[in-house]
Amino acid sequence: MVLDKINSPKDLKELSINEMNELAEEIRPLIIKKVNTTGGHMGPNLGIIEATIAMHYVFNSPEDKFVFDVSHQCYTHKILTGRKECFTNPENYYKYTGYTAPEESPHDIFKVGHTSTSVSLATGLAKSRDLKGEKGNVIALIGDGSLSGGEAFEGLDNAAELDSNIIIIVNDNEMSIAENHGGLYKNLRTLRETNGKAELNFFKSLGFDYYYVEEGNNIEQLIETFNKVKNIDHPVVVHIRTLKGKGLPVAEQNKEMFHWINPRILDEQPQNAEPIEDYNSITNEYLYKKAQEDKNLIVINPATPGVHGFTPAFRTKMGKQYTDVGIAEEHAIAYASALAKSGSKPVLAIMSSFLQRTYDQLSQDLALNNSPITMLVYWGGISGADATHLCTFDIPLISNIPNIVYLAPTCKEEYMKMLTWSVDQTEFPVAIRIPTGDLISRGFEDNTDYSKINKYKIEAKGEKVAIIALGTFFKLGEEVKNELRDKLGINATLINPKFITGIDKELLEDLKNAHELVITLEDGLLNGGFGEKIARFYGNSAMKVLNYGSEKEFTDRIPVDKLYEKYHLKKELIAEDIKNCLFEKSPI
Amino acid sequence: MVLDKINSPKDLKELSINEMNELAEEIRPLIIKKVNTTGGHMGPNLGIIEATIAMHYVFNSPEDKFVFDVSHQCYTHKILTGRKECFTNPENYYKYTGYTAPEESPHDIFKVGHTSTSVSLATGLAKSRDLKGEKGNVIALIGDGSLSGGEAFEGLDNAAELDSNIIIIVNDNEMSIAENHGGLYKNLRTLRETNGKAELNFFKSLGFDYYYVEEGNNIEQLIETFNKVKNIDHPVVVHIRTLKGKGLPVAEQNKEMFHWINPRILDEQPQNAEPIEDYNSITNEYLYKKAQEDKNLIVINPATPGVHGFTPAFRTKMGKQYTDVGIAEEHAIAYASALAKSGSKPVLAIMSSFLQRTYDQLSQDLALNNSPITMLVYWGGISGADATHLCTFDIPLISNIPNIVYLAPTCKEEYMKMLTWSVDQTEFPVAIRIPTGDLISRGFEDNTDYSKINKYKIEAKGEKVAIIALGTFFKLGEEVKNELRDKLGINATLINPKFITGIDKELLEDLKNAHELVITLEDGLLNGGFGEKIARFYGNSAMKVLNYGSEKEFTDRIPVDKLYEKYHLKKELIAEDIKNCLFEKSPI
Repeated sequence: MVLDKINSPKDLKELSINEMNELAEEIRPLIIKKVNTTGGHMGPNLGIIEATIAMHYVFNSPEDKFVFDVSHQCYTHKILTGRKECFTNPENYYKYTGYTAPEESPHDIFKVGHTSTSVSLATGLAKSRDLKGEKGNVIALIGDGSLSGGEAFEGLDNAAELDSNIIIIVNDNEMSIAENHGGLYKNLRTLRETNGKAELNFFKSLGFDYYYVEEGNNIEQLIETFNKVKNIDHPVVVHIRTLKGKGLPVAEQNKEMFHWINPRILDEQPQNAEPIEDYNSITNEYLYKKAQEDKNLIVINPATPGVHGFTPAFRTKMGKQYTDVGIAEEHAIAYASALAKSGSKPVLAIMSSFLQRTYDQLSQDLALNNSPITMLVYWGGISGADATHLCTFDIPLISNIPNIVYLAPTCKEEYMKMLTWSVDQTEFPVAIRIPTGDLISRGFEDNTDYSKINKYKIEAKGEKVAIIALGTFFKLGEEVKNELRDKLGINATLINPKFITGIDKELLEDLKNAHELVITLEDGLLNGGFGEKIARFYGNSAMKVLNYGSEKEFTDRIPVDKLYEKYHLKKELIAEDIKNCLFEKSPI
Repeated sequence: MVLDKINSPKDLKELSINEMNELAEEIRPLIIKKVNTTGGHMGPNLGIIEATIAMHYVFNSPEDKFVFDVSHQCYTHKILTGRKECFTNPENYYKYTGYTAPEESPHDIFKVGHTSTSVSLATGLAKSRDLKGEKGNVIALIGDGSLSGGEAFEGLDNAAELDSNIIIIVNDNEMSIAENHGGLYKNLRTLRETNGKAELNFFKSLGFDYYYVEEGNNIEQLIETFNKVKNIDHPVVVHIRTLKGKGLPVAEQNKEMFHWINPRILDEQPQNAEPIEDYNSITNEYLYKKAQEDKNLIVINPATPGVHGFTPAFRTKMGKQYTDVGIAEEHAIAYASALAKSGSKPVLAIMSSFLQRTYDQLSQDLALNNSPITMLVYWGGISGADATHLCTFDIPLISNIPNIVYLAPTCKEEYMKMLTWSVDQTEFPVAIRIPTGDLISRGFEDNTDYSKINKYKIEAKGEKVAIIALGTFFKLGEEVKNELRDKLGINATLINPKFITGIDKELLEDLKNAHELVITLEDGLLNGGFGEKIARFYGNSAMKVLNYGSEKEFTDRIPVDKLYEKYHLKKELIAEDIKNCLFEKSPI
């Protein structure tokens, strides 16, 4: 195998074009097998094998610097830079991350997982090179989908002003995660259709020199063009047309489905099993029904329909009442705010980690204008995710902004009541933290009037210890209550706060009567979170408070069970802490 | 006067072109006098008088909807929409805000003060109109400077896809707050130089129809073009060339200085007084000296040089070691992170309120990569500012992100030590909250080794009560200490924490020995802030804690003294709270 000879990019430079073509065909099945085993980004990696080989053939990494946007397409790069064993040997499948990681290799410069950052990062590298009077190429590889993000535009606008070498490779596979959205994409199409020759050219309008490569999966053509721009003394865009999912027919044909896949997708037989009811399905069933009744309802999503179960069928039947704004989270918030201000009923679906792009828009465009949107926050909570995709920060992010009402349902009954209330109310910007995991039914009808904000619910009245268990951690609260009964003979009070963004002063004041200790449980970061507000409330009283949640750190693919152990998010550990606290020993 | 006849936009429609020209010349001195009296945005408003008249003549507000970007250019709009008395009668000068404000008038749709949001907001209004099957024009007015912000691009990219009416008026006065930066601006220049006829056209590349008005201060020409696009059925950009500061020669010639002015600028005689030493001057003196010694130092600023005292002279002498990235805060952080990763020493200067644009970049591009940049945060603290420009949120914003070290100096000696340490260290992303107000010297040499992070300093050892007084509120801490001595005979401990982002566990643990109560003082939001971490720390102990700072609310031009009263940020009120707390009465 050609791959046997490749232990670093240098080895690549000895190969002929034919050998490099062979190499690409050797790498392809390795990626397919590995991703089908572990899950991961399939389509993006299959489309960029040839370009990555050509990049490493023409340029000299790490002296020449590659910045991968999102870095979810870096598998071939990892294979070529001394890490092929994570693809050739299944035992090493989990040894390396699915993103660039400086701790793994000097060929990886940044830890990246969010979109649209590569051009800005590359501009900084280029400027640093220039300040030091050094030479070398700086190359950003960015997908067409990522170009719609504001940070990418800010980067392009600034990169274009560099008076020196910077090479932006635009990997145009005609797809974002799902289809692209935005006026820019018409221009990319025109450029493709004219072999890059159209007068109207977005990149040239910003001041870039521009090259087009129609066959972006043709190593020879790529090398030819990369050689033309190597050591160039001004900013240039190389626009290459690639095929997402190339070489795996099912991925070529189902580009959205194969952008990121769960393990073993390729092994499964098509099933006709009844679809499972989950938080996504009940949400989308409601949204569709409501959209039929009320033409003012509109669902908005920034480029992640798969996360929310917004299938192509759902999108089609929602028609004009569904907008995918592309990778444009900032726009999504302002857009939703204006829709609400005009009397429409926007429901914005967004993943906790990507919501981080919108702090200022949440504050200024939304909260300051007090626009009654409904924002559904997905995947919020402590998890074993990559450091780039942690969803533990949304409570501190949202809940310290005035005016927003952030709700934490504990079960499907509460969630549906909150959702239906929120969509029709006109008083508050409302966010709902959709529970993670399986659908939980607590088997009651929720008749709460959520317009009376910041009213917590006492689920079980007890004494001595009060457990305030937020959202998904309500279940843990129940377990702790039982543990306290069984192990310490304590009949604890159990509280379901429901509202993340406010304090129920009356209830908390009442607790002082028969309780010595309040514990808070939240599925997210302690710092700046929910529990600290409770600690502050009781600061001037004799009430003791223990807060449970995650610590301020970027964890990276640590199994959630280990994190629970570390953060004492287990009934036994919490009961032990409570025992120590009540009996004056030093707790955690 | 023509203005006497104008009480609503309807009255404008009766006027001839000549009368409208007269009206513009009547409005101009009113704006100059008012802004020179109260302070405010001078240049932007003087440049847009004619266009605002033409907009209100052609379109029918509020059925047709105007969205003003930043809305710092809305003075003529206010005059024409029933609020002229705030310009004609000095007694009413403070009656209305300097930005659009829905509570003032149905002609103002959004509360806006940050840049680059108008196109997204207008897109939402247009979409809502379409969902409801209504008619009408939606018009966004955006300055050329604001176009570099990522949110504006996301908005344009999405607006271009609307299958209906949206009109983006690009007010091109060839300036941002200072000069423009970015490749886009070369294209705007080309368009101006070709009377809008250049083939390469940024707006057309995104799919917009496009009109150019060379004389953007000519009411007749503006009306002619606005009439062409009125009721248009697709997205269109009207690019108008205006003169910033028009009609006030000193403002036309000093566009940057007259973007926003303090009161009475026009009345002052040029002075040759010695320049005052302040936090800006000592910062910039250090930065220039350091830049001379070390070619790796680079100062970065997103379009607000005036805030930091980066005068044209300073910028010139810094040469390639100064980069204004334009209105592009997201890019600024990623760019700085990459510079630091490459061994350069970036110092990023940014205003607290505008830093809000960068939460995700602080987290992902910076903190996750642990890049050793120095970020100087300006104007952080409680103030009487407009709701759109509050600087009270930076502590919750920054301090709940892992890895970043956020420092709060209490005086110039600490600040300079922190700054010089930060610039040369290579371990941490460091942010420094530059104190507001006059330079404070505490007359000692600071020999602290700040690489030993999260070590608080005991400034005075006492007992019973410990005062942890952060940054600018250290002075208040000293006052409280004296008040406790004088009124309650308590010799309180006074602590200068210096580090916002971490807990000095050892010191806090020690305090338990001789203290019953800890109070925290911070010049910013309590929710998610510094004090709550202290409250959490002591949650399981007998130590009582009182936290002082601002409440979670958008205050709007409330004098700071009233806010201090409300938040109990006065020595007498705090001493009273302490007395109540120690003697078991109910405190605040």
